Amino acid sequence: MSDLPGIVVTGASGRMGQMLIRLIQDSAKARLVGAIEREGHDWVGRDLGEAMGGAANGVLVTDDPLVAFSGAQAVIDFTAPDATVAFAKLAAQARLTHVIGTTGMGVDHIAALKPCARHAVIVRAGNMSLGVNLLTQLTKKVAAALDTDWDIEVIEAHHNKKVDAPSGTALMLGEAAAEGRGITLAEHRESGRDGMTGARAKGAIGFSAIRGGDIVGEHDVLFAGQGERIVLRHIATDRAIFARGALKAALWGQDKAPGEYDMLDVLGL
Amino acid sequence: MSDLPGIVVTGASGRMGQMLIRLIQDSAKARLVGAIEREGHDWVGRDLGEAMGGAANGVLVTDDPLVAFSGAQAVIDFTAPDATVAFAKLAAQARLTHVIGTTGMGVDHIAALKPCARHAVIVRAGNMSLGVNLLTQLTKKVAAALDTDWDIEVIEAHHNKKVDAPSGTALMLGEAAAEGRGITLAEHRESGRDGMTGARAKGAIGFSAIRGGDIVGEHDVLFAGQGERIVLRHIATDRAIFARGALKAALWGQDKAPGEYDMLDVLGL
Amino acid sequence: MSDLPGIVVTGASGRMGQMLIRLIQDSAKARLVGAIEREGHDWVGRDLGEAMGGAANGVLVTDDPLVAFSGAQAVIDFTAPDATVAFAKLAAQARLTHVIGTTGMGVDHIAALKPCARHAVIVRAGNMSLGVNLLTQLTKKVAAALDTDWDIEVIEAHHNKKVDAPSGTALMLGEAAAEGRGITLAEHRESGRDGMTGARAKGAIGFSAIRGGDIVGEHDVLFAGQGERIVLRHIATDRAIFARGALKAALWGQDKAPGEYDMLDVLGL
Amino acid sequence: MSDLPGIVVTGASGRMGQMLIRLIQDSAKARLVGAIEREGHDWVGRDLGEAMGGAANGVLVTDDPLVAFSGAQAVIDFTAPDATVAFAKLAAQARLTHVIGTTGMGVDHIAALKPCARHAVIVRAGNMSLGVNLLTQLTKKVAAALDTDWDIEVIEAHHNKKVDAPSGTALMLGEAAAEGRGITLAEHRESGRDGMTGARAKGAIGFSAIRGGDIVGEHDVLFAGQGERIVLRHIATDRAIFARGALKAALWGQDKAPGEYDMLDVLGL
Repeated sequence: MSDLPGIVVTGASGRMGQMLIRLIQDSAKARLVGAIEREGHDWVGRDLGEAMGGAANGVLVTDDPLVAFSGAQAVIDFTAPDATVAFAKLAAQARLTHVIGTTGMGVDHIAALKPCARHAVIVRAGNMSLGVNLLTQLTKKVAAALDTDWDIEVIEAHHNKKVDAPSGTALMLGEAAAEGRGITLAEHRESGRDGMTGARAKGAIGFSAIRGGDIVGEHDVLFAGQGERIVLRHIATDRAIFARGALKAALWGQDKAPGEYDMLDVLGL
Repeated sequence: MSDLPGIVVTGASGRMGQMLIRLIQDSAKARLVGAIEREGHDWVGRDLGEAMGGAANGVLVTDDPLVAFSGAQAVIDFTAPDATVAFAKLAAQARLTHVIGTTGMGVDHIAALKPCARHAVIVRAGNMSLGVNLLTQLTKKVAAALDTDWDIEVIEAHHNKKVDAPSGTALMLGEAAAEGRGITLAEHRESGRDGMTGARAKGAIGFSAIRGGDIVGEHDVLFAGQGERIVLRHIATDRAIFARGALKAALWGQDKAPGEYDMLDVLGL
Repeated sequence: MSDLPGIVVTGASGRMGQMLIRLIQDSAKARLVGAIEREGHDWVGRDLGEAMGGAANGVLVTDDPLVAFSGAQAVIDFTAPDATVAFAKLAAQARLTHVIGTTGMGVDHIAALKPCARHAVIVRAGNMSLGVNLLTQLTKKVAAALDTDWDIEVIEAHHNKKVDAPSGTALMLGEAAAEGRGITLAEHRESGRDGMTGARAKGAIGFSAIRGGDIVGEHDVLFAGQGERIVLRHIATDRAIFARGALKAALWGQDKAPGEYDMLDVLGL
Repeated sequence: MSDLPGIVVTGASGRMGQMLIRLIQDSAKARLVGAIEREGHDWVGRDLGEAMGGAANGVLVTDDPLVAFSGAQAVIDFTAPDATVAFAKLAAQARLTHVIGTTGMGVDHIAALKPCARHAVIVRAGNMSLGVNLLTQLTKKVAAALDTDWDIEVIEAHHNKKVDAPSGTALMLGEAAAEGRGITLAEHRESGRDGMTGARAKGAIGFSAIRGGDIVGEHDVLFAGQGERIVLRHIATDRAIFARGALKAALWGQDKAPGEYDMLDVLGL
């Protein structure tokens, strides 16, 4: 019997679920002990490995979280808000670390997690990538350390299908910069420069959005002073980084006291 | 007596004039033989070296081009349109290579250069930097070589005092890209992205303008395909590059037939 | 019946073969008409789509090139030198465009292609990516346009498994730069800088090799002058670009006269 | 009478001294109250403004630190080790903040500062630029936050006159990374890659040195993981940043308790 933490994946058949499953199976620090799909899904009752188009791996896909959670130490969950709240209650009862990458959680959903966090570790984050979370923290620190003689610009590049600009992550970085400076982004945002703009406003936080090809996601936070510049850059080349962040969170949670955490806690920043 | 080409600088007391003078004096390929200022300027009649705040160099500043041009092989001229046309006529009589970096030339000014170019070499360019001219040419070539599955973006960064966006050079690069593709920039320009933009239009040429600190000028032309990207980048860190381009043009013109040329001819592209 | 050029893929079961097959099937400019595997391979005789783990597509995998080539217009071939020479003879008889991405071809193999190229188009290249080939050509042009006051450096980044430095492509770019300057790389190569190196040798071509993570391949050619720099950069994020280059070559070859070509011909540079 | 802190500059005629003087004169947060040159220097006894080739500014250059220090609040000192120790004693007596950018200080010199720091603030740093110091701190934090699945590379670029590689600052950044990881750089340094290197050693800290043109100094610390990368970048474009860092340190020291500090204290990191 392995001593590695046993992990359950929800939404096993989805793109993110399958990515998580492969990641855990390839990891030397964790083992996959359960896979959950919703009632009625045609994977339920099948061997997970076979359902994924490969060799059998001895894990049966189930629609019963209690079965899956028994003998597990953590559950990684990128599903939907209602499902996540239901999983949170059962995970709390079973004292499992619950890693939540589910997006679109409303105020009520988040409130419903609170009692669960009295009994178990919950790690929740809008962006599970280690790199972006780290960059956000660094951005806040640097913005706090430098005065407004340093101009802050956030430059992001994404694929040509993206429909909004700047990216949500770019805005999150801008918020972090504003927080570091003790100002609000809303009052200092400068985006969409075009034409006779006049000189840059002192204290502004500028945004540029590059679009092209199949760029997964790149973010620069530029601090431009007189005679020198600092750039904090994140380059994502594979969406699997979100899965990796989630696994790291699951392992991190193993020896932590019950409570609500985010990726910054996991990173120790 | 040196065999190096003798060069005259107009507008000797200006920022660009002084930069040119120092460059020529430091060059092993040319020698400074004359310096012109406008009638009534307090440098006229003084030793140029002393006027510049250093040791005497034996060159007297004059307001008479005929005097300055006698015994010279080239004149470098960053002044004003009317003055430039007047210099062109005298330079043609003296068979001097006339390098023109003057901006704001109107249609009439340019027409007035034509007869002069029948007798002497004229090199004229809006941007004298070797690098930017080379980049413009490369941009056109690459745009012609790649189809519209490659998205073109021009990204530029300048100091926080700049009042317009995108930069004139960025637009020149965009024009070069459009020309390479056989389209017009006006119909395909996409600048100032902000908010719900929708997916990138196929065939668009996008622009981003970064502003901060004392950045002299940086331009990227990005060609973003599927799974690969090409970037053509120019970084300017010193405004002296415009002077260097002009000197190179003056030397290049020494053995050329009379006619009108630009920096692309000088670069041999 | 489609008028699109019909293309055959050799080595159909390999990583590159499967990549090519998917690319052609997804293309609106070509159609897949044949798939070849070596005698005895268990895919031979099976439906190609099924062999690849998907739905049947009506193409039978064969070990007989004559069968596959009948009714085709081109063959794309990333196999081994001896097989490639054999394919070349049959492709020439059938007047097919033969695109060769096979590496490790010796002098004899290359010589054996010559008679075939009298009857059909052969396109052969060590690196099929459009971007890298374009960059090579640009490097040569820029190196020819700039004098040795501009220092040339080639910087490459690859994943942490790579065992040699600099990369073959970096050296190819260095050769292109040397050729542009009319010098040999062997005499001017400066790689592995470490310790008290002394000042940079005038005219040197420097190399830096960055290793980390899963970087697919990035190459910069830097031309560093006084006050300005030009950078030609290629970023590869997906190995499928080699397949795309091969398909482009196959289509390009359709209306060309018999002969030997490389990717620079395909790109029209 | 202004309430701004009065600052004395040592080595007033040197490149760094003159840079400091101009910076302080242009600053709205400090005023220049003294300028020191060594005994016998021809600036001694002259008006500083005139000695610098401009208009008189009422500050007499002196070779007597006691005269210069009287009525001052800080002294900025980029001279030589022995001179710096002598200045430290007098600055301590006068309770001045002593900012030391002098390089080449030996163990004895540093020991001699200790008693002085019991009476006054001493800020000493090998590199006074805010940006590089900040980058060093960030590097340590990021290295501590990420495990050895992230490969660390330090890439630096400098002008073609530089005689050593990697740069001292690059090594300082590498030391910071090693410290963050709890390892020694000496055991994990990987520099000068060239030829058949084999795969990258796990846990190595790699270095690349780019040389060309007149690049003032650029440093990247790359953390390359699977599917993502973080880059911490510093770009210096003007050597005046060292002067700016020194002035900031002088102002910072005004309300601090006596003791020895470095730029990280000044930055509040």
